[in-house]
Amino acid sequence: MSTHFQMIAIGHVDGGRGPAEDDQWGASRAAIVLDGLPEAALTGLDSFSHCEVVFVFDQLPESEITTGARRPRGNPDWPLVGILAQRGRNRPNRIGVSVCRIVAVSGNRLEVEGLDAIHGTPVLDVKPVLSGFLPRGAVREPDWARAIMADYW
Amino acid sequence: MSTHFQMIAIGHVDGGRGPAEDDQWGASRAAIVLDGLPEAALTGLDSFSHCEVVFVFDQLPESEITTGARRPRGNPDWPLVGILAQRGRNRPNRIGVSVCRIVAVSGNRLEVEGLDAIHGTPVLDVKPVLSGFLPRGAVREPDWARAIMADYW
Repeated sequence: MSTHFQMIAIGHVDGGRGPAEDDQWGASRAAIVLDGLPEAALTGLDSFSHCEVVFVFDQLPESEITTGARRPRGNPDWPLVGILAQRGRNRPNRIGVSVCRIVAVSGNRLEVEGLDAIHGTPVLDVKPVLSGFLPRGAVREPDWARAIMADYW
Repeated sequence: MSTHFQMIAIGHVDGGRGPAEDDQWGASRAAIVLDGLPEAALTGLDSFSHCEVVFVFDQLPESEITTGARRPRGNPDWPLVGILAQRGRNRPNRIGVSVCRIVAVSGNRLEVEGLDAIHGTPVLDVKPVLSGFLPRGAVREPDWARAIMADYW
């Protein structure tokens, strides 16, 4: 089994927010601009309401990656949680996955709303949201996971 | 902006299905076994019902990657759709993202149900499913996207 993979950004985030902050992402408008992929890669994406964006938290220094457990957002009121049991950016491989709303597709630009990635973020993949791939069965989560979302969007 | 990123598998899929087939994944049981990350990375993941697994379709030859549009599953009844408007594995960077049910966490093993990745698949990341990160607003999708899921789980 190979364990090392070279990934090449297929595009980048244009516009949207500057600093990497934790909250108030809901109304954020941005575009994903393709680099080096033909425009045809986006054909038909506008028949979906939402897409999932796979990106790299490239502004995070690798020295800040957590491999074990930490408190979400460093908040002492919340429990020690493994890095794979939270969605913070200080994670191995620094991969982010976010669902956002599709506003429009125009040439090599995919306009989106509510993407929690900053200007210039390298994008590795975009996938349509199919209802059949959403969680099957009720979603259960701990209290801190609801609290952390209170002001996010 | 960096455009090339070296990713290292944090673990692999153990068990589950052998051949890469398209349907009937729902009852599939498998484990994600950590390689080189401390067990603490999984702390608290069992307080979530579902997780999202980011993996590599490493059995797909790079020569089979599509960068433009193709018909989903090669089905002539379906429209030409850009590779970023479908979730097929023949995609740039060969990244898969799937939501599955968490069955148990034990040491460095995360037992899951309904993961559509085959035995030996390299895993780049695991994230908990937070209800606050699910699609906001109604999900709209084209007819082929519903048809493709009819026998999937």
